[in-house]
Parts: sequence; structure tokens; C-alpha cells
Amino acid sequence: MNKHNFDNEAINKHAELRGKIEIIPKAKVRTEEDLSIYYTPGVGAVSKLLADSPEKAKDYTIKSNMVAVVSDGSAVLGLGDVGPEAAMPVMEGKAMLFKDLAGVDAFPICLDTKDEDAIVETVKNIAPVFAGVNLEDIASPKCFEIERRLQEELDIPVIHDDQHATAIAVLAGLINALKVVGKEKHNCKAVIVGSGAAGSGVARLLDKWGIGDIIMVDSKGIISSQRGDLDPNKQKLLKMTNKNDEHGNLADAIEGSDIFLGLSQGDLLNAGHISSMNSDPIVFAMANPTPEINPQVAIDAGAKVVATGRSDYPNQINNVLVFPGMFKGAIESGTKSITDEIKLKASENLASVVVEPTADKIIPSVFDEGVVQAIVGAF
Amino acid sequence: MNKHNFDNEAINKHAELRGKIEIIPKAKVRTEEDLSIYYTPGVGAVSKLLADSPEKAKDYTIKSNMVAVVSDGSAVLGLGDVGPEAAMPVMEGKAMLFKDLAGVDAFPICLDTKDEDAIVETVKNIAPVFAGVNLEDIASPKCFEIERRLQEELDIPVIHDDQHATAIAVLAGLINALKVVGKEKHNCKAVIVGSGAAGSGVARLLDKWGIGDIIMVDSKGIISSQRGDLDPNKQKLLKMTNKNDEHGNLADAIEGSDIFLGLSQGDLLNAGHISSMNSDPIVFAMANPTPEINPQVAIDAGAKVVATGRSDYPNQINNVLVFPGMFKGAIESGTKSITDEIKLKASENLASVVVEPTADKIIPSVFDEGVVQAIVGAF
Repeated sequence: MNKHNFDNEAINKHAELRGKIEIIPKAKVRTEEDLSIYYTPGVGAVSKLLADSPEKAKDYTIKSNMVAVVSDGSAVLGLGDVGPEAAMPVMEGKAMLFKDLAGVDAFPICLDTKDEDAIVETVKNIAPVFAGVNLEDIASPKCFEIERRLQEELDIPVIHDDQHATAIAVLAGLINALKVVGKEKHNCKAVIVGSGAAGSGVARLLDKWGIGDIIMVDSKGIISSQRGDLDPNKQKLLKMTNKNDEHGNLADAIEGSDIFLGLSQGDLLNAGHISSMNSDPIVFAMANPTPEINPQVAIDAGAKVVATGRSDYPNQINNVLVFPGMFKGAIESGTKSITDEIKLKASENLASVVVEPTADKIIPSVFDEGVVQAIVGAF
Repeated sequence: MNKHNFDNEAINKHAELRGKIEIIPKAKVRTEEDLSIYYTPGVGAVSKLLADSPEKAKDYTIKSNMVAVVSDGSAVLGLGDVGPEAAMPVMEGKAMLFKDLAGVDAFPICLDTKDEDAIVETVKNIAPVFAGVNLEDIASPKCFEIERRLQEELDIPVIHDDQHATAIAVLAGLINALKVVGKEKHNCKAVIVGSGAAGSGVARLLDKWGIGDIIMVDSKGIISSQRGDLDPNKQKLLKMTNKNDEHGNLADAIEGSDIFLGLSQGDLLNAGHISSMNSDPIVFAMANPTPEINPQVAIDAGAKVVATGRSDYPNQINNVLVFPGMFKGAIESGTKSITDEIKLKASENLASVVVEPTADKIIPSVFDEGVVQAIVGAF
């Protein structure tokens, strides 16, 4: 499977567009009368109305439908801490998809600070403009505390996409993958590699869903009771995973497992890892832009269902399946945070968009009709 | 002159639009290939490029052409401290005009803080996204320090529109008004009512231009050496104004003056004030939405040239004549702050767009061709 490399096309297109989104007026301002209605003096009447009733901003301004896509550039794709400028193309891409897929306006806010308190303060300070905040590509573990604090202090939905949207998409794919291989969730052992925002979110949702067991692996090996270096988030994860308290490295974790869920970095696995798994293994190699294992290598080594995070392989498990509908649903329903019930329902709805799952089609395409509505329907 | 009231139309239109701007993709994302170029995996190559060379964000992202219109809602129009939500319709209106008139993208940032340090920090934190910062409707005197600090600490243009754009527009109108009445600038005494951002900016530019004398008036009366309550900004203004150190109230200031420049609040003057002025008085009653004096009352009382800030009277002196071109010029030329030379040149260029000034046409309409280019040409 020698895939096309999009790097040069992407760089050329980005240089040509000089920004992938633009801001346009919803009405023409062509005459003195237009100016009197949309600007001065007419706008003064709207300002006075909102001075008296600030909560009506959602009825009279872009606060009706505008999401801030906020990142500090500390965990961008699988590239890591690349800074706010390097985060921009990703956040602009999200803004394109928000509008194209769900009709939601979104604006990238890439922050020149990595400090937790400064991020919280900055987002609070700019919140009057927005209907929701999509936290994005913010490193773990600070991302958990940033989300919790902003949810507590703001009256709009604040959702860390990497945790919740990714988990919903992964579970949707897994629901259908298990149908394809004919296994039951409570008999399955899943290995999750990566215990950042995405890995943590996936582990929590699979636990709620009722999977048999989860083994989490980070760069130091299996998260077990023998580890003395676990931060509070990983200690919490340990309580819901690794029922037999296994120890060891990545290979130890994968051997005898049914499901591999990679949310870490490229080129981590080889054919030997796959062939050590249980029969009919399911492999989600979702690191971006380079998967944990080349999909063809995984298939040749016996993987029954393979998914990646990329749009140029079959079975793209990507949070783009979820975030447009998730914010549309949250804004429309006034939901401030995404409960487990919403997430489980969203995964089921998303899985059911694929009427007859096969090894090459466990998840809908982002362009399939019904995807956004499946997510919105969970609210 | 019984003018049409636009309040209801404005409120209805704003309720209908629910936000006057929207964010749209510059390219279609309709296929897996589009997704691979604009989002993952292709976007990873652009992110890597910008991780290595963050300064290239201006060539590959919306940073090429995106202005933040930043307000804390503390001095909105002539309405005063109405808060961030009430500032939104004004900032959205500016964003419409930025795009419509000059092709510049602009996004409103209305802040939930009025603290100088917090405003500076917040703007610094979100600066990676923007090509320029338009500070707007921020109360005096903190606006001066906020502008100074941000200009010092950021590498993009930061311009407090109310000071500089307003001053450029007022001077342009004044250049032509003096032609209409046949007076010389060095013989004229101008009264400026309002010593906030706009009044201060106008005073400084008229001084550089070489007007005869300026009397500044605030809510306590003439700014003179007898005043013990002057803040540092007003102390600085006193040094360049009021050559004969006159004392007194608004009426004392206006009597015997040639030019009235109102940048304060509505319904401040009556016919008696106008008839106490020198022959052929020039009256710019620019408070928004309600002028300092009804234009017809001013004319009936002897005013030779009358201008307002409104689009529904002749001679609209509004910074919308200036800010779109000012940011286009600053971004294109890489200018960080607007020097006196740029401002004087911009005023002259703008005045000259009106080939034959008359009492009813001292300033071009914002829709006149050549307005934006007149301003850009000053850079």
C-alpha cells in the first residue's frame, strides 16, 4: 500500500490560500441606509438593548453560533509541542469543517502561552464572543484541569475535543469492528497506547461501555501498580484498567489482546506485534500524520479490521466525524458538558450510520449523509 | 430636519441575522483528497514547516490578513461603559466594513475584563493568530497605556482606532471645511469637547498640523492651568493647547472660536453657543449616535459647515473612512505604529478625494472610490 504523499500539495495549497478561512459580512453594506442599520447610528439601539440584557447577545450577535477553537500548540496532531503558529493550519482546517459539515462558525485562537492559569484566564476574557469553546491539541495532563475549570466558570459549553470527540469516534468504529469479527465487548481485551487526552478519553468511555479489560501503555510501558511515576490522571486510569495488574512493555501488553488502539506516535508496531494478538485482531492505528503501523503491514500480519486517523486509508477514525455535530448539538441544546450518556448514545448513533459494517467500512465517511445528525441526535 | 429613526430596523435586522459576519472556508472540502490536503494528513507538513519557521505563519495562515477588533466595552460609541456584549454589534459592524471596503478580514474580540494588565496579557496571548490589532472603544486614559505597551511587546501593528483613525478623518474634513469658509489654519481657534481617546488624538494631530490654537473642554470645563484635577494625559494636552491659558466653561470656550469639534456626548449645545462663535463657524458634532447639536439647529444659528458622525446626515466624519485603509496599509507595509507623518499625509490624501469641497461635501462618502487607496497611499 504505497500511499500518495500529500505534503507538497498541502504546502502549495496553503501558500496559495494564505489562510483557509475568511470572514464575510452576512449582509451587503452598499448604501448610507445600510450603514445606518448595520453600523452607526442604528447599531447604537442594539448596543443599548444588550447593555440592559447582555444574555441576549446570543440572539443578536455572532455569539449565536461561534465556536472558539483554542489551542496552545502543545500537543498538535502526533507532532507534539510545536507552538501556536504551527497549530494554526490544524485549527483553520477544523474551522473549515465546522462550517462545511455542520454550519457552525468557528475561529482559531492559538495561544502564545502554555501556562494553565494564563490559558484559563485568556479564554474567560474572550468568552463573551463565543457560543462554545473547543479546546484542542492541549497537552495532558493540564488539559483536564483547563477543561474542568472553564466548564465551572463559563456559562457556555467547553469541550476538549481530543478527549471526547475522539472517544466517541473510536467507540463507534469499535462497535462495528466487533460485529465484523463476531466478538462480544465483555470478552475483549483492548490495549490503548497513549495516555494523553485522547487515550484517557477513550479508556474512560470504553470502561463505561463495558469492555472486558483495558491495558493502557505509555512511553514507560504498561500502566500498572508497579509504576512509581504515575501522575494523578494515570493513577485514576489505573483504577479502571488492567484488572490483573499486568506489568511489562508494549509487546507484553499487545500479546494476547483483541484490540489495539493507538493514540500515540507513528511507526511504533511491527508485524510481530500484530501476529502476537488473539485471533481476528482489530487494529486502530490512529496516530497522525503517521500511523503506529502501516495498515498493509498490519493486514499482512493477520489484522482483520484496520483503521487509521487518515483520510487516505479505509476506516478513518477521526474526530472530524464528531466535533461538528457535537458543538451543533451542544449549542442548540444548551448543554455545557458532554456526559457519558451523550457520548455512548453518539457512538451508537454514529455506528448505525453504517448499515452493514465490513472490514473496510466500520465507520462512515465524514461526507456520508447523516453523520452530523447522528451526533446531534444524542443531545 | 426630521431624520429617520433606524432603531427598530436595526434591532430587527440584527435579530434576523443573529450575527453580522460569518466564517467561510476559502476552498471546498468535498472529497477524501480535499480532506487530505486541507486537514489530515497533509496539514501536518504545514505544521512542521511552521514549527521550524513560525514567522512564516503570515504566508500560510489567516495571519496574512486577519485583524483583531479588540474592545472591553468601556467606551462604546457615545454610550459609555456598556460591557463586552453591548460592544459586539459595533465590533461586528466594523468587521463587515473591514472586509467590504478593504478586503481585510477582521474578528471581534470583546473582553470580559476592564483591567489594563489583563487586557494587555489577553491580547498578547491571542496575538499569534493576527496580522494586526485594532483597539476600539476602550476608555481613556487606560487606552493610551494599553496601546503603548502592546506596540512595544508585539511585532504586529497595534492601533487604537479611536485616537488615530478619528483624528485623520477629522483633519481631512477640516482641511476642506477651511477651504469652504476661506480661513487659514494658523488663524483659527478650535474648541475640542471631549478629552478621551478621540479628542486627545484629534488635538495632537491638529497641533502637528499647525492650527492657531486649541481649547480643550472636558466635563469639568476648559483644560487650563487652574485645574487641579488633570490626569497625566490631560496635563500633556494642556502643554500643547490653550496658549492664553483661558479658564471657564463650555460656553466660555466656544465664544469667539472658529471651529467646534465635538467628540463627547449628545445634546450638549444650543443655538446660542453657535451664534457666539466667530463668523462662518465650522461645527463638527460627532458624538454617536446623538450629535452634540442637531445639524439643522446649528445651520439655523449660523454654522457655515456642519458635519456629524452619522451616515444619515451630510458630511459624515467617521473613522470608517480611515480604519479599513489604515490596517490594509499597515499590514501591507509592515508598519507597527502610525506616525504623525503618516497621519498628516492620510488626511491630505483623504481630503483631496473631494475635488471641489462645498459646505455639504467636505469629506468623501465611505462608498466613494479612492477612499481606501487614499489612506493606503500614506504608508
